[in-house]
Order: sequence, then C-alpha cells, then structure tokens
Amino acid sequence: MGWGDLGAFGEPSKETPNLDQMAAEGMLFLDFYTANPLCSPSRAALLTGRLPVRNGFYTTNGHARNAYTPQDIVGGIPDSELLLPELLKKAGYINKIIGKWHLGHRPQFHPLKHGFHEWFGSPNCHFGPYDNRERPNIPVYRDWEMIGRYYEDFKIDLKTGEANLTQLYLQEALDFISKQQASQQPFFLYWAIDATHAPVYASKQFLGTSQRGLYGDAVREIDDSVGKILNHLQQLGISENTFVFFTSDNGAALISAPKQGGSNGPFLCGKQTTFEGGMREPAIAWWPGHIPAGGVSHQLGNVMDLFTTSLSLAGLQPPSDRQIDGIDLLPVILQGKLIDRPIFYYRGNELMAVRAGLYKAHYWTWSNSWEEHSKGIDFCPGQNVSGVTTHTQEEHTHLPLLFHLGSDPGEKYPLRFSSEEYQRAVERISGLVQQHKATLVPGQPQLNVCDQAVMNWSPPGCEKLGKCLKVPESDPKKCSWPH
Amino acid sequence: MGWGDLGAFGEPSKETPNLDQMAAEGMLFLDFYTANPLCSPSRAALLTGRLPVRNGFYTTNGHARNAYTPQDIVGGIPDSELLLPELLKKAGYINKIIGKWHLGHRPQFHPLKHGFHEWFGSPNCHFGPYDNRERPNIPVYRDWEMIGRYYEDFKIDLKTGEANLTQLYLQEALDFISKQQASQQPFFLYWAIDATHAPVYASKQFLGTSQRGLYGDAVREIDDSVGKILNHLQQLGISENTFVFFTSDNGAALISAPKQGGSNGPFLCGKQTTFEGGMREPAIAWWPGHIPAGGVSHQLGNVMDLFTTSLSLAGLQPPSDRQIDGIDLLPVILQGKLIDRPIFYYRGNELMAVRAGLYKAHYWTWSNSWEEHSKGIDFCPGQNVSGVTTHTQEEHTHLPLLFHLGSDPGEKYPLRFSSEEYQRAVERISGLVQQHKATLVPGQPQLNVCDQAVMNWSPPGCEKLGKCLKVPESDPKKCSWPH
Repeated sequence: MGWGDLGAFGEPSKETPNLDQMAAEGMLFLDFYTANPLCSPSRAALLTGRLPVRNGFYTTNGHARNAYTPQDIVGGIPDSELLLPELLKKAGYINKIIGKWHLGHRPQFHPLKHGFHEWFGSPNCHFGPYDNRERPNIPVYRDWEMIGRYYEDFKIDLKTGEANLTQLYLQEALDFISKQQASQQPFFLYWAIDATHAPVYASKQFLGTSQRGLYGDAVREIDDSVGKILNHLQQLGISENTFVFFTSDNGAALISAPKQGGSNGPFLCGKQTTFEGGMREPAIAWWPGHIPAGGVSHQLGNVMDLFTTSLSLAGLQPPSDRQIDGIDLLPVILQGKLIDRPIFYYRGNELMAVRAGLYKAHYWTWSNSWEEHSKGIDFCPGQNVSGVTTHTQEEHTHLPLLFHLGSDPGEKYPLRFSSEEYQRAVERISGLVQQHKATLVPGQPQLNVCDQAVMNWSPPGCEKLGKCLKVPESDPKKCSWPH
Repeated sequence: MGWGDLGAFGEPSKETPNLDQMAAEGMLFLDFYTANPLCSPSRAALLTGRLPVRNGFYTTNGHARNAYTPQDIVGGIPDSELLLPELLKKAGYINKIIGKWHLGHRPQFHPLKHGFHEWFGSPNCHFGPYDNRERPNIPVYRDWEMIGRYYEDFKIDLKTGEANLTQLYLQEALDFISKQQASQQPFFLYWAIDATHAPVYASKQFLGTSQRGLYGDAVREIDDSVGKILNHLQQLGISENTFVFFTSDNGAALISAPKQGGSNGPFLCGKQTTFEGGMREPAIAWWPGHIPAGGVSHQLGNVMDLFTTSLSLAGLQPPSDRQIDGIDLLPVILQGKLIDRPIFYYRGNELMAVRAGLYKAHYWTWSNSWEEHSKGIDFCPGQNVSGVTTHTQEEHTHLPLLFHLGSDPGEKYPLRFSSEEYQRAVERISGLVQQHKATLVPGQPQLNVCDQAVMNWSPPGCEKLGKCLKVPESDPKKCSWPH
C-alpha cells in the first residue's frame, strides 16, 4: 500500500472511511517509513527492530539489489535474531500472526519457532497458480501444519480478482481477540494481510465497489476490516487497553499500475526504489483514552520503531546485546515529542540515501536497469527526473544529491552543490553516515542462495491432506536479483 | 493554489489547520475544477457563470493558446456580460471585491462598473517592480481611485518575500463583514487574494514558519486568514446565514517550483495545462447549520457553479437570454445529490479535453512547445508521459486519448482503443462534445490586442497622489501568447 492510498493522506477517491476515522481518533504519521523498499526485509525489520543489513535480510549477489523470500530461497530469519513475539512471550503475551510471514519457509524459520503461538496464513506471496511439478502452489498454514494451498483449497480467481482471504483473516482476528479477552490474556496480533499485493484480490461483496478498480476494492475491504477490528475492540471494552498501529511494508508497486497499483501521493517512484514513493508509508496509531484524537505527527518514524514501542508498552527493555534501530515512539505518541533521528534507505547492503530532518541525501541513485526498463519494467511510470531516476547505478558518495522534502516532497529539484544550505545539510548527514557505518555489523546475508529443493513441496501436514509433492534434486545456485 | 496544497487534500506537511477544519465542518469537493488553466479567464468564468470561450476571455492569436490580462491588454470584461454582483445588487446585496480583479484594467472594465460597490485591490498581477518608464508599477485601488502602486506604496520585498498584503486584505474583509452585519445588509464578498501567485509573498509573522518554504508561508497566512474570517462570522452570529466557498483559479504553477510552486497532489502537470494538475482545484463549502459536517462530494463541480449557486442562495434565477455553464450546487451540498454533467477543458478556443463521470477524453494534448521547453520552461517538471505530455500540439479528435481518473488519477495509462470500455466511454463523451459544439456561440475574443498606451500609466486618482505617468503613443499589436 502506498502513502497516498488512504483518504486521510489525500487519496482523491476518499474511500477509506474507517482508516480515516482511525486517524481522526488517533495520530496520523506523515513521515513514517519502512525499512526497505520491499516486503520480506521490511517485515524482518519490523519484527526484529533492526535494519535488514543487520538481521540478514539482504543479498550480496549483486550491488544494491533488492531481494526477498521466494519459494526457492534457502535462507530465512536466523535463530540469532530476537523477534518481538519471542520477547513479548516472556512477558506473558499470546502472539498470533495472521497472513503473510515472509521470513523464510523452511522448518527452522516457522513463525511458531520464533515466538508466535498461533499462525493462520502463508509463508510466501500468493503468486500462482503453479503446476505442482516445476513449482508447488503456496501452502496455507494453521499453526504448525499446512491446511491447503492457494488456488487449490484457497481460491484466488485471477480473472475476476475474487478471493475471500481478507474475510478469513478478519474472522481469525476477531476470534483471536475475543478468545484473549475472554481469558484475560494480553495479546500481540500481527495482522499481515496482503490483498493489495499483486495479484490483487477482494471478496465478492467488495468487487467493483471502488472508483479505483480492483486495487481500490482491495483497499476498501482492508479498510472495512480494520473498522470491524477496531469496533470489536470497543465492543469488548478493551480499546483503551489495546494499542493499534496501521502501516505498510513498502510503497505502492507502480509497476502493477493502473489495474493493480496504488498511489504514492506526491512522491517519486514506487516499490523497489529508495525514492520517497518506495519507502514512505501511511501510518496511524490508535489507542483511545491515551492518544489525543486528531493528532498529526512529523516524527520521522520507521516500522522498526514498532518493535521498540511494543516492548515499551509491555514494560520490556529492548535487547542490549545488539544494535537496535527502532526507537520508542511513546513519547511522540503520548506527549507529542519530536525525536531527532535519521532514516536510512538501503537497497541490498548499499546505503542509498539518508534523511535527517527535512533533508534527504542520495548517495546512490537507481530506479532499475536499462535492460529491464526497455522491457517495460518501470518503477517510476510517468516520472522522470533527470539525473535522479537513473537507469544506471549512479554514485554520488562524494557529492550527494540533496533534496528538501518540505518544499520538494517529490524529489525533483536537487539543491545547488555550492549553496550554503547544501553544505550545512550534507555536513550534518555525512556525520550521521560515518557514525552509522562505523558501528555497522552486517548480518550473514540470507537471500543469496536459491534451491529448487527447498520449495514448498511437502510442508508439514501434507500427508493428512494427500498434498505431499516429490522433492526434486538439490541444486543450490545464486539467486538472481535483477533490480 | 493546487489541489494538493491543503492538509485535507493530502499535503504532506499538513499546515492548514483552519482550512482543514473548514472542510471538517463543511463539505470537501474532490472533483472540482476551474474553467481554465490560468487566472483571468477562470475569474471571468466564475463571475459570469460562463466558459471563457463564451464570455470573451480567450485569444485567437494562435491555436490553443493561454491568455490573460497583462498591463498592455486592450480587452476586458464586455458590458454585455452579466456579472454575479450585478445580479445580486438587484436583490439588495452589497458587493465587495478584495484583491485581484484581472478582468481588464481600462476604465470601462472597472469592477464598480460591473456590479461591485467596493474594491480594495489591484487590476493586474503583482509583477514588478517596474521602472515607470517602459512599464508602470501596478496600481492598488480603493473603489474608484488608485491609492498607490505595488513596490512603491505597497511593498513587496522580492528578496525576503515579505509583503503584508494578505493582512491588509484580511482586515478589509473583517471590516466589510462587520459593517454589513451592523447595517443588516446582505453581502457578497469576493476575497480574491493572490499571495501564492509568483512572486509569492507572506507577512513577516509568517515568513519562515512553513516546512515548505516561502510558498508554504503564503499558504499558512491564507489558511490563518480564512480561519479568522470564519471565526469572525461566528462571533458576529451570522455564520449560519453566510455561505462560504474556498477554491482556486488554477492548479499550482509547477514552473515556479520548488521555491514558489505548490502541489497538485497525484495529478499530472500544473497551471497552463489541461491535465488534471492544471485545472482540478481544492474546494470547500461551509455553511454551519445547513451543510452537514464532514461531507465529501464527488460531484463534478466548476468555479462557474458558484455563479449559479450564489444566485440560487439569493433566490434569483440565472439569466435566460444566454447559455450559462454553471449549475446550482445546492442539491449537492444540502441533500447530497449527484448531478451528471461534463467538465470542459479549454485552452484558448480549443476544446482540449472533456470529462464525464470518471472518464476523461483528450482531443488535443500539449504541455508547451519544444522551443520553450528547451529554455527550461516546464509545466510538468519531473513528469513525462509518453504521447500525453507532448511538446507539439497533438490532435486526437478522431481517436481521443482516454483515461479512467478513478484508477488512474495521474493520467498515465491511456485506455486501449480497441477495448469495449474505451468505445463505450468515448461514444458517450463524443455525444456531449457534439451537443456542446452545436450550441456554442463564441464571444468576441478580448485577449488578442495589446497596446503599450493602455497600461496603468495614469489611473483615476493619480493626480492627487502625484503619480500620473506619461502615456506613450498608441501602438496596438497582436499580443504574443507563447503557450
């Protein structure tokens, strides 16, 4: 989902009354970021509070390449990483993930081995359908075991876009919340829906209801579901005791536009890029009785902050034996404070850009290769800022491209190198970069090796369903990451 | 001002709390348009309820050229046009214009000859300073007479951007409202401020207060002033008896960005173009006790509707002896109705595009000429949609370029000519175009002839001030309209 996809963020169809109301009752974050311009690394960062370059969710197969966890990925979340649910578990929380995990699908990476008590959802994206010979269909798990596969037991109609998955995820969420409330258990629910990820889907009742096409239908269903979840918390009388945060793991995938692509508002480019459109996210905090209604924050926030903030809410300290990138947002949310902190924009293990205050310095620019671009793969459709949305990897480490995101949110007008403003801002940001790089201990890269043998051929539970598939010979290779 | 310049429309700095509150208490129009992508013709359309091609505010000096009223323009608002204040006057309204008139500055075009009782402001843009030899500085009028000139008696500091004009306009507005309330007179106030028009300015107390630079300072001052006006209406107890509408006369001038240019949100290009960024406007209706709070309307609206709607509020009928393009929005505003009507996008006397429902058909595309573009004059900076933002005038009358503004508000993905959706929509729009063209009676074009002798050399009142300048010889020429 992109920054510009919600009414409260200026989406011109204004079709998200529930999220808009959530914002009106809570706090809107206008300068909130994800940790990476695509899904797996962002989610790993959210749950570990650490940049992907630290927690291992990156590749070194090429320079500055985006990588995630496809079916043939060998890696996943390392045991050495401490996940939010692992820590919350120790404080008595019951933790559930509903939806897409995306932190590795081999047995050692299973969410229930990393602190979650329950899971309903799938380990990978809902790509498909596959033939179950070259490539298996993606499994859907309930807790430890597969209970079916996408396109087989969990239908997604690619022609109409119909799939009732968001409704299943909603019902799971409502049931889980009811159960925890009934048993007076503190809980952590990671509601990781994926209807706005291509192939975009919506339930029958939402199909054709949006002015924005199928993507809008999916947004409307998510909006409706969020409304029902918040309403459920209020009905159960636990809304003042439940902190809710809504955000996304990357900017809208403009490559999927117009039919399946969302909006990044006034920002440049989309998913896969380190321009604002790739990493600035819609974000809303809600906690009636605690967060003053109608707040708007310009705090530079990051999904990694949800790790630290959640620990803080649970009365826990973040681990002290490792670098944590997330900060505790409670002073921001509850007392309106502003905490000075930078935002780091990575692609693979390359630090592409850094934001401090209203300034953003690009050390490398790249949208994607000419080779891809000539095939029609475009991460910045309709946009072309000369020398900025480059199709070769351009190094600017000696003289970074600097933008003022206040007067130029669209990253269209680099500041003059000779200006005093440029020199002051770059000096400050360079200091932050030096400090960051000096203390950086990169994790073992998890997204380098792919192997057809590790795909979801025979997930646990497949015997009961008669859905075990023959595992092909192991053939480990460097994964190919073209952008 | 652009569609994306207000917080309620998604401006990422959210610095317009008063206008946002006006929207929260009133109705937000998301699909509201101006009648032309630049100032004079839009204002003429607002006050006459008629398209510029009817009321004469266009040029035929070149094909599809934008034109306005510079100092050497010979034309202006024809006597044959009936302006809103002329009609309201007959119903007992006292009418005042504060700010920029822009409907011609020669004696016969004076606002007090066209229905206004009072005027404080100037006839042209606040360009300058001039040397008073080649070109005089623009006069500022109080009612019939000049009381000084910009850059002389009414300072605008081009270096710092400081000017207190918005404060003067605000005080005039508050005083006028107080006076009318005290005398129980119904009134029409046309508050035509221009702080966001280059050269952008703000008062000292607002300078440097915005994250968005000088342009943002100007927006903040306007926002603050609107808040004070609404508050004044409430203090006087007449808010439930006063209809207030906020909008703009063209999209943000991206040519002035980043220092003096605003935001058109997700839309394509800016002022001077018939893409959405040039003509879709922020719009808010406010009338406590009548308009339900928090309304959001997708009614296709136009500044010309303010003519008809205002007449309706005053219990008057629009003139029946001429074609009126504005519609009465009261059923939309008060009863939430949606009225099916097209939007026509003109450049000069060429119908460039038409919107009906969510579809927009481009019959001609042009951003500006290669010649201008090569000099750095760019109406679509950072944006380039192949075959759409063309630098030659491209005719598509036989096979219009069609966009679905719901799924593609940025006009980036023309629909396939062969699709059924294309054929259905174009058939419908073609019918509307035929009907429109069949009944169109173009007015005498007012913006063709320029003459150095008609500039503001010796406006009425200049003798008292000792500010009369020598009128040069008359030398009428075709005005040059490059885009």
